[in-house]
Amino acid sequence: MNKDILDEIATVIEARKTASADSSYVASLYAKGLNTILKKIAEEAGETIIAAKDNESGNQKAQIVYETADLWFHSMVMLAHFDLSPTDVLEELQRRFGTSGIVEKAARKGSK
Amino acid sequence: MNKDILDEIATVIEARKTASADSSYVASLYAKGLNTILKKIAEEAGETIIAAKDNESGNQKAQIVYETADLWFHSMVMLAHFDLSPTDVLEELQRRFGTSGIVEKAARKGSK
Amino acid sequence: MNKDILDEIATVIEARKTASADSSYVASLYAKGLNTILKKIAEEAGETIIAAKDNESGNQKAQIVYETADLWFHSMVMLAHFDLSPTDVLEELQRRFGTSGIVEKAARKGSK
Amino acid sequence: MNKDILDEIATVIEARKTASADSSYVASLYAKGLNTILKKIAEEAGETIIAAKDNESGNQKAQIVYETADLWFHSMVMLAHFDLSPTDVLEELQRRFGTSGIVEKAARKGSK
Repeated sequence: MNKDILDEIATVIEARKTASADSSYVASLYAKGLNTILKKIAEEAGETIIAAKDNESGNQKAQIVYETADLWFHSMVMLAHFDLSPTDVLEELQRRFGTSGIVEKAARKGSK
Repeated sequence: MNKDILDEIATVIEARKTASADSSYVASLYAKGLNTILKKIAEEAGETIIAAKDNESGNQKAQIVYETADLWFHSMVMLAHFDLSPTDVLEELQRRFGTSGIVEKAARKGSK
Repeated sequence: MNKDILDEIATVIEARKTASADSSYVASLYAKGLNTILKKIAEEAGETIIAAKDNESGNQKAQIVYETADLWFHSMVMLAHFDLSPTDVLEELQRRFGTSGIVEKAARKGSK
Repeated sequence: MNKDILDEIATVIEARKTASADSSYVASLYAKGLNTILKKIAEEAGETIIAAKDNESGNQKAQIVYETADLWFHSMVMLAHFDLSPTDVLEELQRRFGTSGIVEKAARKGSK
């Protein structure tokens, strides 16, 4: 299912890249350009952090999921701007984690 | 494949939650607590934005993929902190996009 | 001059805290609450980063100044929410830099 | 006092731009380049947001001041990279707020 939904969304986003700006939210982002898309990533990262903090002592898990979905979604809009896809990101994660999942630490070594 | 890698990573992350802090990078994040994880999300969002800007006139697509992978990965560490999984996020995206992918705009209505 | 303008803005912001939500932009931020103010900080940080990257090979210094002003301004709105002022921040900076300005490195030791 | 401390810090930062990378924290930032400085702005914005959320129901005002000072400080490091100063930012704020402080709303009109 996961693969299906990510691929489906990527396909929808791709179609929006050439649609008229007023035809959808994503089309309007592309019409405004890369900076607008990147501002959304900053904004959604902030909202994800706030939602996580709000959940610390309370119970707003749905809000955390909602904001993370927004963050991932706008990441995918950015990826498509560069003709990249979620599959590229998943392959990078696959590369890091290898076949066993045991090599996590080594895979990240030197990443920062 | 996508589903496999996301589920595999989620499983690895889950196992790290109870591992000793010095056993892996992810275990050390959990030992430091939620704020440390959230700071990583802010940091990786910044790095994703910078990588995207660096690619505008040049060609560093691998760097964009790399930073987006970091951003998604740390999002998954945060999700697991709340006993949430990437599947929860994908289901939220599925819910928004419905079966046709045409309802994108309406699905987002009132999101902000 | 610097002191005057920071104090003046802090005074204006303070007055907005109790004004009706539709009387000004700042009053509307306070009406919406802390999360809205914090989202603006995330957003303005992102815009500052983007403006800096846009200036790297071009020449948009005014845009950098503009976005940094937005970032500092919304920081001051946040400070006032907690009955804090820019003077508190400047005193913290003063404390770090001491009288000579030479102690920068030591002052930051252990900050992260 | 405010003007003194901001000018003093700007002077210290300026001197660090040409100092050897291992002579101070700021010198090491300049040696690493603009992207490293911008990543710090993203990171400090995140930490400011987290500190503000942590204070919501508790009492960590000192932490909020501390993180805001970090955010402003790294903003000043970025400004100096472009041969800009805090005075430029304050003049922009002065311009917006005018002489009366009443024009706040109009000054921001069209800013976003």
